[in-house]
Amino acid sequence: MADTVTPRKHERSFVRTFLTSPTAVKGEEDSAKMLRGAIGLRGMQAPDVWTPDNEDATAPTMRDEGAENVAEVVAEEGADFPGEIHPRIVWRRDDAGTRYQGLQHMLRIADPKKEAIEHIDGFVFPEVGDIDDWKKADEAVTMVENEYGLEEGSLKMSVIVECAQAELALEDLRDEMGKPTNNLERLFMLVDGEVDYTKDMRAITPTGGLPPWVELRHNTSRGASAAGLIAVDGPYDDIRDIEGYRNRTIENSAMGMNGIWSLTPDQVVTANKSPLPPVEGYWLLEAGDRKIELDDEGDAWTYAGDRVTLEETGDRYRLTVGDDRKELDEDELHQELVDMLEYVPNMDDMVDSMEEFEEARDSGIGAIAMTRDATVRIDGVEMEIEDDRMWDEATYEAAMTPVKLFQDVYENRPDQHEELEEMYGANVVDRATEIGS
Amino acid sequence: MADTVTPRKHERSFVRTFLTSPTAVKGEEDSAKMLRGAIGLRGMQAPDVWTPDNEDATAPTMRDEGAENVAEVVAEEGADFPGEIHPRIVWRRDDAGTRYQGLQHMLRIADPKKEAIEHIDGFVFPEVGDIDDWKKADEAVTMVENEYGLEEGSLKMSVIVECAQAELALEDLRDEMGKPTNNLERLFMLVDGEVDYTKDMRAITPTGGLPPWVELRHNTSRGASAAGLIAVDGPYDDIRDIEGYRNRTIENSAMGMNGIWSLTPDQVVTANKSPLPPVEGYWLLEAGDRKIELDDEGDAWTYAGDRVTLEETGDRYRLTVGDDRKELDEDELHQELVDMLEYVPNMDDMVDSMEEFEEARDSGIGAIAMTRDATVRIDGVEMEIEDDRMWDEATYEAAMTPVKLFQDVYENRPDQHEELEEMYGANVVDRATEIGS
Amino acid sequence: MADTVTPRKHERSFVRTFLTSPTAVKGEEDSAKMLRGAIGLRGMQAPDVWTPDNEDATAPTMRDEGAENVAEVVAEEGADFPGEIHPRIVWRRDDAGTRYQGLQHMLRIADPKKEAIEHIDGFVFPEVGDIDDWKKADEAVTMVENEYGLEEGSLKMSVIVECAQAELALEDLRDEMGKPTNNLERLFMLVDGEVDYTKDMRAITPTGGLPPWVELRHNTSRGASAAGLIAVDGPYDDIRDIEGYRNRTIENSAMGMNGIWSLTPDQVVTANKSPLPPVEGYWLLEAGDRKIELDDEGDAWTYAGDRVTLEETGDRYRLTVGDDRKELDEDELHQELVDMLEYVPNMDDMVDSMEEFEEARDSGIGAIAMTRDATVRIDGVEMEIEDDRMWDEATYEAAMTPVKLFQDVYENRPDQHEELEEMYGANVVDRATEIGS
Repeated sequence: MADTVTPRKHERSFVRTFLTSPTAVKGEEDSAKMLRGAIGLRGMQAPDVWTPDNEDATAPTMRDEGAENVAEVVAEEGADFPGEIHPRIVWRRDDAGTRYQGLQHMLRIADPKKEAIEHIDGFVFPEVGDIDDWKKADEAVTMVENEYGLEEGSLKMSVIVECAQAELALEDLRDEMGKPTNNLERLFMLVDGEVDYTKDMRAITPTGGLPPWVELRHNTSRGASAAGLIAVDGPYDDIRDIEGYRNRTIENSAMGMNGIWSLTPDQVVTANKSPLPPVEGYWLLEAGDRKIELDDEGDAWTYAGDRVTLEETGDRYRLTVGDDRKELDEDELHQELVDMLEYVPNMDDMVDSMEEFEEARDSGIGAIAMTRDATVRIDGVEMEIEDDRMWDEATYEAAMTPVKLFQDVYENRPDQHEELEEMYGANVVDRATEIGS
Repeated sequence: MADTVTPRKHERSFVRTFLTSPTAVKGEEDSAKMLRGAIGLRGMQAPDVWTPDNEDATAPTMRDEGAENVAEVVAEEGADFPGEIHPRIVWRRDDAGTRYQGLQHMLRIADPKKEAIEHIDGFVFPEVGDIDDWKKADEAVTMVENEYGLEEGSLKMSVIVECAQAELALEDLRDEMGKPTNNLERLFMLVDGEVDYTKDMRAITPTGGLPPWVELRHNTSRGASAAGLIAVDGPYDDIRDIEGYRNRTIENSAMGMNGIWSLTPDQVVTANKSPLPPVEGYWLLEAGDRKIELDDEGDAWTYAGDRVTLEETGDRYRLTVGDDRKELDEDELHQELVDMLEYVPNMDDMVDSMEEFEEARDSGIGAIAMTRDATVRIDGVEMEIEDDRMWDEATYEAAMTPVKLFQDVYENRPDQHEELEEMYGANVVDRATEIGS
Repeated sequence: MADTVTPRKHERSFVRTFLTSPTAVKGEEDSAKMLRGAIGLRGMQAPDVWTPDNEDATAPTMRDEGAENVAEVVAEEGADFPGEIHPRIVWRRDDAGTRYQGLQHMLRIADPKKEAIEHIDGFVFPEVGDIDDWKKADEAVTMVENEYGLEEGSLKMSVIVECAQAELALEDLRDEMGKPTNNLERLFMLVDGEVDYTKDMRAITPTGGLPPWVELRHNTSRGASAAGLIAVDGPYDDIRDIEGYRNRTIENSAMGMNGIWSLTPDQVVTANKSPLPPVEGYWLLEAGDRKIELDDEGDAWTYAGDRVTLEETGDRYRLTVGDDRKELDEDELHQELVDMLEYVPNMDDMVDSMEEFEEARDSGIGAIAMTRDATVRIDGVEMEIEDDRMWDEATYEAAMTPVKLFQDVYENRPDQHEELEEMYGANVVDRATEIGS
């Protein structure tokens, strides 16, 4: 069965990381210092998309100089940068002067005489409004392409979704992108900007922290999916809290948003690795509202916490989860544990399951059960349990997503091959790059 | 005040259950075996809508034979089947060949010479895209109707919403259904397909389990409500986990999605009963994040768990909920318990309340308080509490929904009358079928 | 950087409270008694918007008299009422007779001879359907304006969003409001009506309680933001449960919905105060799924609960949160507590931060860290911790929302000046009204 996912419009199907850097810093002898630092990043520290930020990250008075810096630094080192380069310029749905300034900055950066343009993949527009405002931004890029004899549509365009108007525009993309009087097919990333969105929605929280904005993220992911684009979440302020950042990426991936803004190389490393299949598989025990990872002690997967307790009472068992206590016989306990346990497959497991299903399918079988066994130990009590799941074509295709992401990374980021082989081993990497093709 | 709910387009206002069966199984001497099994179902085991599945549940190589099987089995036994019959045929928004094949399969199944069509209520289309793709599906059905001299629009059409494009199309239905160049008024069910949707959204979860997709379910329910259609949730994979399945139906009903896909007769029984008002009313005690059902011990409703404790200390009380401890006097305790307790009415209670309100309304009173008393016992401490709620016209109409669902079931499913009377008693059934009419 | 929030269409930018009163009560010697009571409210007990309710709150047989009462009472006392006055009249998307009746009631209320119209700001329409139905309502108001020689568009129009059709219409407002053949720029408030919405969505809950309808509230807030309108939540039935009501307003504000329906003067007081910055700042300790307010004991912020425990073990510490126990050294504990603690700033703190940022910005600095120190005591163990957050232009503007709300209140509600000065002190009020201008 052919894959019905809407095909992406550009070479890259996935963007894990979106790193922004100030284009001109006041008071440094080299105001382009931050740009030179970022463009030198390689491997897991280098983002899939690097965005020299000539908007909020750069003081208004420094932005003309910033545009020159972008051109200069990208001309010098852009050829060797492993990710895509998408500078962010200034734009405002409600201010023609700012829009004109954004056009001027693009013209400076893209000027062929500066020899940066061949390394620049597109531009990022903040503060866009409804769909007609997106068309103005598209037209500005078309003017740049025309001025410098570039093919129309050759420069990609990405937007920051940071107001309600733009959230609503996400529903129009599929209809508008085909129209003859625009080049909106150049659209590439839809990036949420939760701080400005919070302002635009006039939301108030007691601590001043950001609301979760689950609906915005869903709608952005949906808009990207319907139009063949890529959804990216906004910045995560607390740069010390790497664990919280990683959890945000996991939450996002469950919504189909596999990319996130990065403010530091540490965040880049975390977000580059997060959507990749894990190196080691493991079992989760669902204890009330939380899922706890079991420890692999070789002979058994062991639960160490206090939340769940299990006690043998003659030929029966007493299982407590938080405040709930159950008296169970062996079969009931087994069933209970099967329901409480889930396996998190590593990439090796995924490839195995894929291959197993492909074989079955080739021999005309539409659905098979994937079974996984384990010995689980809780408070010294051991039990054999198994987790089995029916796989059909749809399950197979849904399960392919993380593998496709891996394949996309492998194809587009040779600078990460070494780290990927260290992580997974060459054999797993080989099989993962072959599968499904 | 007349009811302003958008009137449904077809006889049935509610569909609780949507059971799919493979149309042709390889290697069986009778490849139609599964169809013959399903079409024989009656009573609570029989679904409101039965869908011979000539798509994913049937191997591609078996689908031509599958179409013949559907025609044959429905011709033989369709007259006696108590639910509606809506075969699913193949369709793909991105593959004209598959769409043409779907048309051919419909032509085979609907061919009057095969004498199945008089028992077939409509067809189900998977993998639809945006609204213009839905119109292609509608046109395919129109061709079938025209070819066989059936009235245009007489065959219903249902779709599986399993991609972002289709989710967006849900917003267009109300505007598009009236247009002169389509017969989209034939639309009947909007069925979510979360597995393919997860693939299309490129969502990733650590275990490979499905994300909750709350927004998709809300948008499907909203689209159904705005266009007078019926919302149905997708398959629930873990067929052993009947409790989880039942909880899913309760969660769905709170979103206005009163129907769900069923993979087995056990699931059908559960989903047929779940949205019906309960036989026995009971009290819930809200303990932190969970609601615990109290035990009816005749003289008092008793709480048995460990999460909430209550202790009499002289003329005061110590109430603990989880980690929270409160010292209260009698009035404060009473107020606290009133806030913590909620009553779940059974059908008898509902009919009582309806009748009470109708009387009040007829005597010119716009709003009345519905009060319910109970004796509650926690750790041996007893207290009289009451739960009262203001009812006005809007409350009355909102409360009518489960009763209307019951009435719709009673009218359309005579084969369930016996079981319903066993459950509720003939007297309650009589009053429930009369009320509100 | 100019503020890009979509400018509101009317003088008021915020509505905290929307109080409804029956227009004519049967059996009272003065059927307008409730109106006279409400129009006499002042200060925190008076709502930002008062709605004499000639629909659901008034018996159908009393509504003609109700319209006369509204005109009479508003003519007599409307000049002195501190909030806006927006009567609700009858309307039904599916009943032309009701719509005509609504028009007649508006004509009675607005008749210049009755001298009420100069104190009436607009009308509220219930039961509206899709956008074309909103246009009918707009046209009815235009007829009233035309009949009495009022300027077209001078009367505001607000709607109750209580069906799926209206929820979908929220997405059309921005495009439709500019069109030459309507006066939809008169739109003012978008008010959710969850009881009727629950009926229209055919949602069922076991207890008959209302579903949370998070998506509806988000979509209403988004629609208001995109079109420059004001979002208001629906009625909160349990009028005794003031704490639950307050929590609802906090949840709403985090969605950008800063107003809520009030059924009683007590609810008005709560909802008028809730979105205002707190008088005293305080620290929150995140313990698992809950956030607990610490007690200010002068020398330290102290945690009193049982959920979190902290113990010194020689040169190390044992921290338990619910079931999780951690052994930490001093630095690890410090980091852990910093992650668990959040500060809720009072208005004084907010103004300080604003001023600090404005200074930095004027001196050309784009981003600064706002730091806050505290001594925290848990189980007798004390520790110095600090909470710091990066502020840039966007953070500053997002943080302005509660201050702008305060300024809007201060400008539009002179009758609350005294209470506000009692709450905050004259000095804080002065600084808060100056900042950002």
